[in-house]
Amino acid sequence: MEYYVATLEKLIEQFRRMPGIGRKMAVRMAFYILSLTQDEADEFASAVSSVKRIIKRCKVCQNFSEGELCSVCTSDKRDRSVVCVMENAKDVAAFEKTGEYNGLYHILHGVISPLDGVAPEDINIKELVDRVKDCEIKEIIMATNPDVEGEATAMYICRLLKPFGVKVTRLAHGLPVGGDLEFTDQATLGKAVAGRYEMN
Amino acid sequence: MEYYVATLEKLIEQFRRMPGIGRKMAVRMAFYILSLTQDEADEFASAVSSVKRIIKRCKVCQNFSEGELCSVCTSDKRDRSVVCVMENAKDVAAFEKTGEYNGLYHILHGVISPLDGVAPEDINIKELVDRVKDCEIKEIIMATNPDVEGEATAMYICRLLKPFGVKVTRLAHGLPVGGDLEFTDQATLGKAVAGRYEMN
Repeated sequence: MEYYVATLEKLIEQFRRMPGIGRKMAVRMAFYILSLTQDEADEFASAVSSVKRIIKRCKVCQNFSEGELCSVCTSDKRDRSVVCVMENAKDVAAFEKTGEYNGLYHILHGVISPLDGVAPEDINIKELVDRVKDCEIKEIIMATNPDVEGEATAMYICRLLKPFGVKVTRLAHGLPVGGDLEFTDQATLGKAVAGRYEMN
Repeated sequence: MEYYVATLEKLIEQFRRMPGIGRKMAVRMAFYILSLTQDEADEFASAVSSVKRIIKRCKVCQNFSEGELCSVCTSDKRDRSVVCVMENAKDVAAFEKTGEYNGLYHILHGVISPLDGVAPEDINIKELVDRVKDCEIKEIIMATNPDVEGEATAMYICRLLKPFGVKVTRLAHGLPVGGDLEFTDQATLGKAVAGRYEMN
């Protein structure tokens, strides 16, 4: 089913491998590249390859960084006694946008998932334990996703860290802001009732 | 609103410029690139830049080609007396898939559209007229889109080519196969009635 010249098919195939991109979208993207000037295409290409060459992981929090340490870990405006544990680097952006958090992060780059063959050793749990051992951390906020793997990972890490005397907390479950009670699932509603708070 | 390291933001911006790609999708794509190995990312980058370097336009039909002439124009299995005129190179693939067509193509790379400032000189009409003058072409099939610009362009080219004694045809309008009469728009239904054919 190849109706385009080989070089173009190769690019279409590259785009098609991306998550959420089907054949039609990939064709559209490849034609977009064809519509660029040579300079623009080269700029695009260099952006792709330099991302891998330049970006490494922060030695402390494992977030993506251009230097040895990321901007959060080197900042002197951050509260160093709180560490928020995330599944992915993407979640950090979501957290930063809230403007509610001023502590540090720790990126696991995955969750424990026996079905997918991901064991505790495969994600950055050891690095987290080392941080708790070494530093002046008082609280660990488990911000893994509220799904089976996320909950299991949070539980696992909680049990691992408790002996060090650190406080381990979990993000609250409940109704999403702006959500509709009618369309809220049972599990969420149950958690919202259980976690109800007194109004003043 | 930049929450990622500069190199990553640059790549996100490159993806965001693509048609139909929003910020969230661009972030997802950039993270996909980050998940590749350096070799895979370099392969991706080279696919992007080589597409512009290698692919040029076929001297005859203006379709994208890796050589001076495209594979359709050089094929000896094609009927050289029929030329199908297309707006875009993408439409050729749609046409080839039908398996119903064995003639040649001519790609306009656009349509006449005074509102967008596209005049007849801006698209490959002159090249089409030259082909009709020089070659043994008997029929020109106008396969521009069935919208205002496509119809206008088809009409314009038809009037331009008539004096050369070539037959100019237009793709049939009517009900799409598998469509539903109830949901067919008035204009299409009108065309379907006008173009009705006798059953045997």
